[in-house]
Formats: sequence, structure tokens, C-alpha cells
Amino acid sequence: MRRIMLTVAYDGTAYNGWQVQPNGITIEGELNRALKELLGEDISVIGASRTDAGVHALCNMAVFDTESRILPEKIASALNARLPEDIRVQRSVEVAPDFHPRRCHTKKTYEYRIYMGKYENPIGRQYAHFVYVPLDVEKMEKAAGYLVGEHDFKSFCVAKAQVLTTVRTLYGIEVKKEGNYLTIRVSGSGFLFNMVRIIAGTLLEVGKGKLAPEQVKEILEAKDRQEAGPTAPARGLTLVSFEFCE
Amino acid sequence: MRRIMLTVAYDGTAYNGWQVQPNGITIEGELNRALKELLGEDISVIGASRTDAGVHALCNMAVFDTESRILPEKIASALNARLPEDIRVQRSVEVAPDFHPRRCHTKKTYEYRIYMGKYENPIGRQYAHFVYVPLDVEKMEKAAGYLVGEHDFKSFCVAKAQVLTTVRTLYGIEVKKEGNYLTIRVSGSGFLFNMVRIIAGTLLEVGKGKLAPEQVKEILEAKDRQEAGPTAPARGLTLVSFEFCE
Repeated sequence: MRRIMLTVAYDGTAYNGWQVQPNGITIEGELNRALKELLGEDISVIGASRTDAGVHALCNMAVFDTESRILPEKIASALNARLPEDIRVQRSVEVAPDFHPRRCHTKKTYEYRIYMGKYENPIGRQYAHFVYVPLDVEKMEKAAGYLVGEHDFKSFCVAKAQVLTTVRTLYGIEVKKEGNYLTIRVSGSGFLFNMVRIIAGTLLEVGKGKLAPEQVKEILEAKDRQEAGPTAPARGLTLVSFEFCE
Repeated sequence: MRRIMLTVAYDGTAYNGWQVQPNGITIEGELNRALKELLGEDISVIGASRTDAGVHALCNMAVFDTESRILPEKIASALNARLPEDIRVQRSVEVAPDFHPRRCHTKKTYEYRIYMGKYENPIGRQYAHFVYVPLDVEKMEKAAGYLVGEHDFKSFCVAKAQVLTTVRTLYGIEVKKEGNYLTIRVSGSGFLFNMVRIIAGTLLEVGKGKLAPEQVKEILEAKDRQEAGPTAPARGLTLVSFEFCE
């Protein structure tokens, strides 16, 4: 028995998120199906990030165990031949038998992309949230600064999240404007359910002038989901990097 | 009667090109339908660039005449409410009654985008041609240099093109690598049918080492479509800018 790790890129537009569920197709479900076709075994991959419906990834991670003697590095292209074109395995390697992608120290980076314009840009609309009101980028940067570090992010996660603790550490947030695109880049050890999208939705309220940058500090302290901004749409969010730390 | 000019952006993935045809939906057909819904008149827009099936545009131009007294600048958003999300009018203005977008001096710029990697990137795959073999960018740049200026581009257009002359002027070609993307940016006064895609296909042959840069000069001189490289896939091509010159 060997444990294999896959690096998986996907366009989440057509999927009900990562995790297998009774209704609708999922990334995990497509990987399990393609692995069964390839290896003839019933396989349930373990994913590192269970991304929401409509969220994209350049490098999510998944592991599975197999009895097969196929060369680990050959699995990526063999799987790609059995996957739809919106999912592409970028790498396949053997890892230690006890390696578990959710029980490691990790650094994950998400990007939330916003297209600013009078009208939406149809090209790349699947990967950006469209905003037609002008945004004050400097204020958004200032507001983002309050979120960096170790905090209780209870205000920035779905109200009924079933987790032991809502304390998380953000390594950094960068708000960057390039042409008509604004990118909010967030790095951390781990994220609560909907956390990046609620951060993006709150920073957008600041950019629109509905919240002052300093209010983001108060929102954190309130530990109440009602205080933060709305959850920004899934299409703007992409998991862009994933590092395992020692 | 007033003449209105539209600036139109579209994701061409789902369309059989710009021009109305008996089978399949087209950008022009969708614009005509939306204009009829909005203005109650039978309208046939005149497009500036009749892009091929699958080709994208940030700023194609179209004009039409209307009896309606709607404010010209209001037409863009009213049309967008009646168009599918992969077509978005960016601007609507009144122009002179004799203005014709194909009878003007223009500068058009197309970009042909290539994603280079071991495996395809599902994110943005609709807007890039995937190439997994390494490309020699310097050789592609050198080859591109031979195409700049006024030439007979007979080798770079479909063999049976019905045009008065195959002489065209290219103002410039730029080959630029950014991360895993290679962009071939071509500017000219006008282009023959499939010309940019055949240029891209030929430069790709140079990048792969199947043609020497100097051979591009010979291909031009041969005036024979058989001598040039294959027509690169439509998905990589986008009309990115359109200027009317005096």
C-alpha cells in the first residue's frame, strides 16, 4: 500500500465545491471516479482544502492510498485523460504512509479578484467579482492591516460554524490594483468557513465608503458575524498557493 | 434617424463567431435580437471586425441606425440587461450618419495567448492555447521581426480568401513572456482571414524548433499558404484594441 499526493488545479464554476455531497458534482467526486477508472480500486481522496461551490484552485492537495504499482509520477497524466477539462492534476508524488494534508502545518494563500468598471468584462468573468462603484484602495489597505496576526475571527466566519476555536493567524493581506483589477491576497495557516469571502466582502464595504477602516478593528472585537460585511461571491476566490511547513 | 456606435466585449467561447449565419448563435445575431427587444425596430448592426468562431474581443465596434429617441449613452446598459453575460456593451455613442467602421483607417491590435506548462491550467483555459513543449521565445521574437511592415501576406491567409489584395501592413509584433504565459501581440491596419492565427501557428513552429526564424522570411516570399505553419486554435485569440485613425 502506498500513499500518493496529488496537486490539483480546477475551475470551480461548474462544481458544488470540493467535498462529495448527495446532490451535484464535486471536485472530490470527479477525482474518486477518475481514480477508480484508472486503478480499479474504490478510492476516497482526502483533500487539504474543502473549497466552496464556485471557488477555484491552482494547487489544492489530495492524498489517497493505493495497492497499484503504477509509477506515482505517471498518475497525473493518466488521471487528466479521465477528468473533465476544468480539473487538471498538476503533479503526483508518493508521500509517507502517515502523511495527512489537514494535520500538517501549512501556509495557504487565497486571492480574491475584483473587476472594477462601468460594465462587466465578459473575458475572465468566471474568475472575478464585478464592482461598478469606485473603490478607495488606500482605505481598503488600511482596513486590511487590522486583520493581520493572530485574532479571534468569529465575526468573519459563518455564524454556526462547528469548530473548536475561531482563533486563526493571518500572515499577511495585500490589496493590489493592476489596471481594472483589484486583488486581495490573504495568507494564513488556516481559514474558517467562508472567512476569506467575508474578509473580501468587508473590505469592499470599506472601499465603497460604507465602513471606515478603523471599524474593521471593532468588527474583529465584536466576535459577531452580523457586524462584518456580506460574504463576497465565490467566483472571485482562488486558492493560489499551498505550502507544507515543518 | 441617428447612427449609434457600440463598443462590444465578448467571450467568444460559446459563439459561431461575429457574423450572423444560418446555423448557430453569433455575437451579431445576439446584438440584433437585443436591439429589437429594446428599440422595437429591425436592426442589423455593421461590425468592424468579423471575428471567427471562438475568438474573443475586448472592444469590437458595431454601428446601427435607429429612429428611437433614447439617449445614445443609455443604450449600453439597456442592451446589457438583454444580452447573455458573455457579451457586454462597454460604450454607446452617436456618430456621424455616414460613419462606417470598415471604411475607416484603423489600428487593430490582437493578442494571441499561449499557456506553457506540463499540464493545462484549467483557470483561464478559455482564453489561452495550451502548449506543453518548451518554446524558444528569442527565436520567436526574431521570426516575428520579419513580418513587421508592408508585405503580401498570401502565405498567412486561408488559401481561397476572396479579397482584392493580400497586401497588409503590420505596425508591430511583440512576443512577451510573463510567468507561464506567452503573448503574441500584433498591431496592423487590417488583417486577412485567419491571418493572426496563422502567424501564431507559424511562430509556434519556430518556438518548437521546427522552423528556423529566417524561414519566416522565405514563407512570406513564397506567397503560398502551404508554406506557413498551422492555424493556431481560436481560443487563444482576443481583439484587444481598436482605434480609428484620421
